[in-house]
Amino acid sequence: MDINALNALPYEDFVNIFGNVVEKCPIITAAVWSKRPFVNLSALEAAIDEFIDALPESGKEGILRCHPDLAGRDLQRGTLTQESREEQARAGLDALGSAEASRMARLNEEYKERFGFPFVICARMNDKASILRQLSERCQNERAAERARGIEEVKKICRLRLYGLVLTDAPNKL
Amino acid sequence: MDINALNALPYEDFVNIFGNVVEKCPIITAAVWSKRPFVNLSALEAAIDEFIDALPESGKEGILRCHPDLAGRDLQRGTLTQESREEQARAGLDALGSAEASRMARLNEEYKERFGFPFVICARMNDKASILRQLSERCQNERAAERARGIEEVKKICRLRLYGLVLTDAPNKL
Repeated sequence: MDINALNALPYEDFVNIFGNVVEKCPIITAAVWSKRPFVNLSALEAAIDEFIDALPESGKEGILRCHPDLAGRDLQRGTLTQESREEQARAGLDALGSAEASRMARLNEEYKERFGFPFVICARMNDKASILRQLSERCQNERAAERARGIEEVKKICRLRLYGLVLTDAPNKL
Repeated sequence: MDINALNALPYEDFVNIFGNVVEKCPIITAAVWSKRPFVNLSALEAAIDEFIDALPESGKEGILRCHPDLAGRDLQRGTLTQESREEQARAGLDALGSAEASRMARLNEEYKERFGFPFVICARMNDKASILRQLSERCQNERAAERARGIEEVKKICRLRLYGLVLTDAPNKL
Protein backbone atom coordinates (compact mmCIF):
# COMPACT_ATOMS: atom_id res chain seq x y z
CA MET A 1 0.00 0.00 0.00
CA ASP A 2 1.46 3.38 -0.90
CA ILE A 3 0.94 6.46 1.22
CA ASN A 4 -1.66 7.94 -1.12
CA ALA A 5 -3.80 4.82 -0.85
CA LEU A 6 -3.38 4.92 2.92
CA ASN A 7 -4.41 8.58 3.09
CA ALA A 8 -7.49 7.88 0.96
CA LEU A 9 -8.87 5.20 3.28
CA PRO A 10 -12.22 5.95 4.94
CA TYR A 11 -11.90 5.80 8.71
CA GLU A 12 -13.65 2.43 8.87
CA ASP A 13 -11.10 0.76 6.60
CA PHE A 14 -8.24 2.60 8.30
CA VAL A 15 -9.32 1.32 11.71
CA ASN A 16 -10.01 -2.19 10.39
CA ILE A 17 -6.48 -2.41 9.00
CA PHE A 18 -4.44 -0.51 11.60
CA GLY A 19 -6.68 -0.66 14.67
CA ASN A 20 -4.44 -3.07 16.59
CA VAL A 21 -1.02 -1.54 15.96
CA VAL A 22 -1.31 -0.56 19.61
CA GLU A 23 -2.72 -3.68 21.26
CA LYS A 24 -6.48 -3.43 21.88
CA CYS A 25 -6.35 0.38 21.53
CA PRO A 26 -8.20 1.10 18.26
CA ILE A 27 -9.06 4.52 19.68
CA ILE A 28 -5.46 5.59 18.99
CA THR A 29 -5.57 4.58 15.33
CA ALA A 30 -9.04 6.08 15.03
CA ALA A 31 -7.82 9.34 16.59
CA VAL A 32 -4.81 9.85 14.32
CA TRP A 33 -7.01 9.42 11.23
CA SER A 34 -7.95 13.05 12.02
CA LYS A 35 -4.32 14.02 11.28
CA ARG A 36 -4.19 12.67 7.70
CA PRO A 37 -2.81 13.17 5.13
CA PHE A 38 0.53 11.72 6.21
CA VAL A 39 3.55 12.54 4.06
CA ASN A 40 4.92 9.07 4.68
CA LEU A 41 4.67 6.11 7.03
CA SER A 42 7.04 7.72 9.51
CA ALA A 43 4.63 10.61 9.82
CA LEU A 44 1.81 8.22 10.72
CA GLU A 45 4.07 6.52 13.25
CA ALA A 46 5.01 9.92 14.70
CA ALA A 47 1.33 10.89 15.01
CA ILE A 48 0.64 7.72 16.99
CA ASP A 49 3.64 8.30 19.26
CA GLU A 50 2.59 11.91 19.79
CA PHE A 51 -0.93 10.86 20.74
CA ILE A 52 0.44 8.37 23.26
CA ASP A 53 2.90 10.90 24.72
CA ALA A 54 0.10 13.43 25.25
CA LEU A 55 -1.96 11.02 27.37
CA PRO A 56 -1.95 11.47 31.14
CA GLU A 57 0.12 8.92 33.08
CA SER A 58 -3.07 6.98 33.84
CA GLY A 59 -3.71 6.70 30.10
CA LYS A 60 -0.23 5.31 29.51
CA GLU A 61 -0.83 2.78 32.26
CA GLY A 62 -4.15 2.03 30.55
CA ILE A 63 -2.33 1.15 27.34
CA LEU A 64 0.00 -1.19 29.21
CA ARG A 65 -2.96 -2.87 30.95
CA CYS A 66 -4.50 -3.68 27.56
CA HIS A 67 -1.51 -5.95 26.87
CA PRO A 68 -1.60 -9.68 27.63
CA ASP A 69 0.96 -11.41 29.79
CA LEU A 70 3.77 -13.05 27.85
CA ALA A 71 3.26 -16.82 27.85
CA GLY A 72 0.22 -16.21 30.02
CA ARG A 73 -3.43 -17.18 30.26
CA ASP A 74 -4.46 -15.73 26.89
CA LEU A 75 -1.79 -17.72 25.09
CA GLN A 76 -2.86 -20.90 26.87
CA ARG A 77 -6.56 -20.29 26.18
CA GLY A 78 -6.07 -19.20 22.58
CA THR A 79 -7.54 -15.76 23.26
CA LEU A 80 -4.57 -13.65 22.17
CA THR A 81 -5.03 -11.20 19.29
CA GLN A 82 -3.59 -12.54 16.04
CA GLU A 83 -0.71 -10.08 16.26
CA SER A 84 0.25 -11.08 19.81
CA ARG A 85 -0.04 -14.77 19.03
CA GLU A 86 2.37 -14.50 16.12
CA GLU A 87 4.82 -12.34 18.06
CA GLN A 88 4.84 -14.59 21.14
CA ALA A 89 5.23 -17.71 18.97
CA ARG A 90 8.11 -16.18 17.04
CA ALA A 91 9.96 -15.52 20.31
CA GLY A 92 9.44 -19.15 21.35
CA LEU A 93 7.00 -18.31 24.16
CA ASP A 94 4.48 -20.94 23.03
CA ALA A 95 7.05 -23.71 23.56
CA LEU A 96 8.56 -23.08 27.00
CA GLY A 97 9.86 -25.95 29.08
CA SER A 98 8.03 -26.44 32.36
CA ALA A 99 10.79 -24.77 34.41
CA GLU A 100 10.85 -21.77 32.06
CA ALA A 101 7.06 -21.58 32.09
CA SER A 102 6.95 -21.59 35.89
CA ARG A 103 9.64 -18.94 36.12
CA MET A 104 7.86 -16.74 33.57
CA ALA A 105 4.53 -17.09 35.39
CA ARG A 106 6.11 -16.27 38.76
CA LEU A 107 7.96 -13.22 37.44
CA ASN A 108 4.88 -11.96 35.55
CA GLU A 109 2.88 -12.08 38.80
CA GLU A 110 5.67 -10.38 40.74
CA TYR A 111 5.87 -7.64 38.10
CA LYS A 112 2.11 -7.03 38.03
CA GLU A 113 1.90 -7.03 41.82
CA ARG A 114 4.69 -4.46 42.03
CA PHE A 115 3.60 -2.10 39.24
CA GLY A 116 -0.13 -2.59 38.63
CA PHE A 117 0.40 -3.21 34.90
CA PRO A 118 1.91 -6.07 32.93
CA PHE A 119 5.47 -6.49 31.65
CA VAL A 120 5.53 -5.26 28.05
CA ILE A 121 8.43 -5.95 25.72
CA CYS A 122 8.74 -6.10 21.95
CA ALA A 123 8.84 -9.90 21.58
CA ARG A 124 9.90 -9.71 17.93
CA MET A 125 13.14 -8.03 18.95
CA ASN A 126 13.93 -10.64 21.63
CA ASP A 127 14.05 -14.39 22.20
CA LYS A 128 12.74 -16.23 25.24
CA ALA A 129 16.04 -16.15 27.12
CA SER A 130 16.41 -12.41 26.65
CA ILE A 131 12.76 -11.85 27.61
CA LEU A 132 13.14 -13.82 30.84
CA ARG A 133 16.33 -11.99 31.71
CA GLN A 134 14.83 -8.55 31.14
CA LEU A 135 11.63 -9.43 32.97
CA SER A 136 13.70 -10.41 35.98
CA GLU A 137 15.82 -7.23 35.77
CA ARG A 138 12.93 -4.86 35.16
CA CYS A 139 11.08 -6.15 38.25
CA GLN A 140 13.70 -4.17 40.20
CA ASN A 141 12.98 -0.80 38.57
CA GLU A 142 11.01 2.12 39.93
CA ARG A 143 7.40 2.39 38.86
CA ALA A 144 7.70 5.61 36.82
CA ALA A 145 10.79 4.36 34.98
CA GLU A 146 9.07 1.09 34.22
CA ARG A 147 5.93 2.81 32.93
CA ALA A 148 8.08 4.87 30.56
CA ARG A 149 10.02 1.78 29.52
CA GLY A 150 6.82 -0.15 28.83
CA ILE A 151 5.55 2.67 26.63
CA GLU A 152 8.81 2.68 24.66
CA GLU A 153 8.27 -1.04 24.02
CA VAL A 154 4.67 -0.35 22.95
CA LYS A 155 6.04 2.07 20.34
CA LYS A 156 8.50 -0.53 19.03
CA ILE A 157 5.71 -3.10 18.75
CA CYS A 158 3.53 -0.51 17.01
CA ARG A 159 6.26 0.35 14.52
CA LEU A 160 6.82 -3.28 13.52
CA ARG A 161 3.09 -4.00 13.22
CA LEU A 162 2.56 -0.85 11.15
CA TYR A 163 5.39 -1.52 8.73
CA GLY A 164 4.39 -5.19 8.50
CA LEU A 165 0.84 -4.27 7.52
CA VAL A 166 1.80 -1.66 4.95
CA LEU A 167 4.56 -3.69 3.37
CA THR A 168 2.34 -6.77 2.97
CA ASP A 169 -0.61 -4.66 1.73
CA ALA A 170 -2.81 -6.32 4.36
CA PRO A 171 -5.06 -7.78 1.65
CA ASN A 172 -7.07 -9.88 4.10
CA LYS A 173 -8.10 -6.88 6.14
CA LEU A 174 -9.56 -4.68 3.42
CA MET B 1 -21.16 -6.04 43.43
CA ASP B 2 -20.58 -3.48 46.18
CA ILE B 3 -18.03 -0.70 45.85
CA ASN B 4 -15.51 -2.41 48.13
CA ALA B 5 -15.51 -5.51 45.95
CA LEU B 6 -15.14 -3.30 42.87
CA ASN B 7 -12.20 -1.43 44.40
CA ALA B 8 -10.49 -4.70 45.31
CA LEU B 9 -10.49 -6.05 41.75
CA PRO B 10 -7.08 -6.64 40.15
CA TYR B 11 -6.77 -4.64 36.93
CA GLU B 12 -7.26 -7.73 34.78
CA ASP B 13 -10.65 -8.53 36.31
CA PHE B 14 -11.60 -4.84 36.31
CA VAL B 15 -10.87 -4.57 32.57
CA ASN B 16 -12.54 -7.90 31.81
CA ILE B 17 -15.73 -6.75 33.48
CA PHE B 18 -15.84 -3.03 32.63
CA GLY B 19 -13.59 -2.84 29.54
CA ASN B 20 -16.43 -2.16 27.11
CA VAL B 21 -18.43 0.45 29.01
CA VAL B 22 -17.01 2.77 26.36
CA GLU B 23 -17.36 0.79 23.14
CA LYS B 24 -14.08 -0.86 22.08
CA CYS B 25 -12.08 1.49 24.34
CA PRO B 26 -10.75 -0.75 27.15
CA ILE B 27 -7.87 1.70 27.53
CA ILE B 28 -10.28 4.09 29.28
CA THR B 29 -11.39 1.52 31.84
CA ALA B 30 -7.80 0.37 32.24
CA ALA B 31 -6.66 3.96 32.80
CA VAL B 32 -9.18 4.85 35.49
CA TRP B 33 -8.21 1.75 37.49
CA SER B 34 -5.26 3.97 38.51
CA LYS B 35 -7.75 6.30 40.26
CA ARG B 36 -9.24 3.68 42.62
CA PRO B 37 -10.52 3.48 45.30
CA PHE B 38 -13.84 4.99 44.22
CA VAL B 39 -16.17 6.15 46.98
CA ASN B 40 -19.15 5.00 44.94
CA LEU B 41 -20.21 4.12 41.42
CA SER B 42 -20.78 7.77 40.55
CA ALA B 43 -17.12 8.44 41.32
CA LEU B 44 -16.07 5.73 38.85
CA GLU B 45 -18.40 7.20 36.26
CA ALA B 46 -16.98 10.67 36.91
CA ALA B 47 -13.41 9.38 36.51
CA ILE B 48 -14.32 7.93 33.10
CA ASP B 49 -16.01 11.17 32.00
CA GLU B 50 -13.03 13.17 33.20
CA PHE B 51 -10.61 10.97 31.25
CA ILE B 52 -12.70 11.42 28.10
CA ASP B 53 -12.98 15.19 28.58
CA ALA B 54 -9.20 15.53 28.92
CA LEU B 55 -8.54 13.86 25.57
CA PRO B 56 -7.64 16.05 22.62
CA GLU B 57 -10.42 16.57 20.04
CA SER B 58 -8.83 13.88 17.85
CA GLY B 59 -9.12 11.44 20.75
CA LYS B 60 -12.80 12.22 21.17
CA GLU B 61 -13.29 11.63 17.45
CA GLY B 62 -11.33 8.38 17.93
CA ILE B 63 -13.86 7.23 20.53
CA LEU B 64 -16.74 7.97 18.16
CA ARG B 65 -15.01 6.09 15.33
CA CYS B 66 -14.82 2.97 17.52
CA HIS B 67 -18.64 2.84 17.46
CA PRO B 68 -20.55 0.76 14.92
CA ASP B 69 -23.23 2.19 12.65
CA LEU B 70 -26.75 1.73 13.97
CA ALA B 71 -28.49 -1.01 11.97
CA GLY B 72 -25.30 -1.24 9.91
CA ARG B 73 -22.87 -3.82 8.59
CA ASP B 74 -21.83 -5.16 12.00
CA LEU B 75 -25.43 -5.85 12.98
CA GLN B 76 -26.05 -7.63 9.66
CA ARG B 77 -22.85 -9.67 9.92
CA GLY B 78 -23.25 -10.51 13.60
CA THR B 79 -19.99 -8.78 14.50
CA LEU B 80 -21.38 -6.27 17.01
CA THR B 81 -20.12 -6.40 20.58
CA GLN B 82 -22.60 -8.09 22.92
CA GLU B 83 -23.48 -4.75 24.47
CA SER B 84 -24.20 -3.05 21.14
CA ARG B 85 -26.20 -6.02 19.88
CA GLU B 86 -28.48 -5.93 22.90
CA GLU B 87 -28.88 -2.16 22.77
CA GLN B 88 -29.65 -2.06 19.05
CA ALA B 89 -32.12 -4.95 19.37
CA ARG B 90 -33.91 -3.31 22.28
CA ALA B 91 -34.44 -0.18 20.17
CA GLY B 92 -35.90 -2.31 17.37
CA LEU B 93 -32.98 -1.71 14.99
CA ASP B 94 -32.64 -5.43 14.18
CA ALA B 95 -36.18 -5.48 12.78
CA LEU B 96 -36.44 -2.48 10.46
CA GLY B 97 -38.77 -2.57 7.48
CA SER B 98 -37.01 -2.24 4.14
CA ALA B 99 -37.92 1.43 3.73
CA GLU B 100 -36.67 2.23 7.25
CA ALA B 101 -33.50 0.22 6.65
CA SER B 102 -32.77 2.07 3.41
CA ARG B 103 -33.38 5.43 5.03
CA MET B 104 -31.13 4.56 7.99
CA ALA B 105 -28.33 3.37 5.68
CA ARG B 106 -28.56 6.50 3.53
CA LEU B 107 -28.55 8.86 6.52
CA ASN B 108 -25.68 6.98 8.20
CA GLU B 109 -23.58 7.40 5.05
CA GLU B 110 -24.51 11.08 4.77
CA TYR B 111 -23.58 11.63 8.42
CA LYS B 112 -20.21 9.86 8.13
CA GLU B 113 -19.39 11.66 4.89
CA ARG B 114 -20.14 15.02 6.50
CA PHE B 115 -18.40 14.51 9.87
CA GLY B 116 -15.79 11.76 9.48
CA PHE B 117 -17.21 9.79 12.39
CA PRO B 118 -20.41 7.78 12.88
CA PHE B 119 -23.71 8.88 14.37
CA VAL B 120 -23.69 7.88 18.06
CA ILE B 121 -26.82 7.90 20.17
CA CYS B 122 -27.81 6.08 23.34
CA ALA B 123 -30.12 3.47 21.74
CA ARG B 124 -31.49 2.36 25.10
CA MET B 125 -32.97 5.82 25.65
CA ASN B 126 -34.64 5.93 22.21
CA ASP B 127 -36.77 3.86 19.86
CA LYS B 128 -36.21 3.45 16.15
CA ALA B 129 -38.51 6.33 15.17
CA SER B 130 -36.76 8.72 17.52
CA ILE B 131 -33.34 7.51 16.35
CA LEU B 132 -34.19 8.08 12.69
CA ARG B 133 -35.56 11.53 13.44
CA GLN B 134 -32.50 12.60 15.42
CA LEU B 135 -30.12 11.15 12.85
CA SER B 136 -31.80 13.22 10.18
CA GLU B 137 -31.74 16.36 12.34
CA ARG B 138 -28.17 15.96 13.54
CA CYS B 139 -26.89 15.63 9.96
CA GLN B 140 -27.54 19.40 9.77
CA ASN B 141 -25.31 20.34 12.74
CA GLU B 142 -21.84 21.83 12.72
CA ARG B 143 -18.96 19.39 13.13
CA ALA B 144 -17.73 20.62 16.54
CA ALA B 145 -21.24 20.64 17.98
CA GLU B 146 -21.87 17.15 16.67
CA ARG B 147 -18.58 15.83 18.08
CA ALA B 148 -19.55 17.18 21.50
CA ARG B 149 -23.06 15.76 21.16
CA GLY B 150 -21.70 12.32 20.19
CA ILE B 151 -19.46 12.32 23.26
CA GLU B 152 -22.42 13.20 25.50
CA GLU B 153 -24.21 10.15 24.07
CA VAL B 154 -21.10 8.01 24.70
CA LYS B 155 -21.28 9.03 28.35
CA LYS B 156 -24.97 8.08 28.58
CA ILE B 157 -24.24 4.67 27.03
CA CYS B 158 -21.31 4.24 29.42
CA ARG B 159 -23.45 5.09 32.44
CA LEU B 160 -26.15 2.56 31.53
CA ARG B 161 -23.60 -0.19 30.79
CA LEU B 162 -21.75 0.51 34.03
CA TYR B 163 -24.84 0.44 36.24
CA GLY B 164 -26.14 -2.62 34.39
CA LEU B 165 -22.93 -4.52 35.08
CA VAL B 166 -22.67 -3.59 38.73
CA LEU B 167 -26.33 -4.12 39.53
CA THR B 168 -26.37 -7.59 37.92
CA ASP B 169 -23.03 -8.50 39.54
CA ALA B 170 -21.71 -9.53 36.11
CA PRO B 171 -21.27 -13.13 37.26
CA ASN B 172 -20.42 -14.35 33.77
CA LYS B 173 -17.52 -11.97 33.42
CA LEU B 174 -15.59 -12.74 36.57
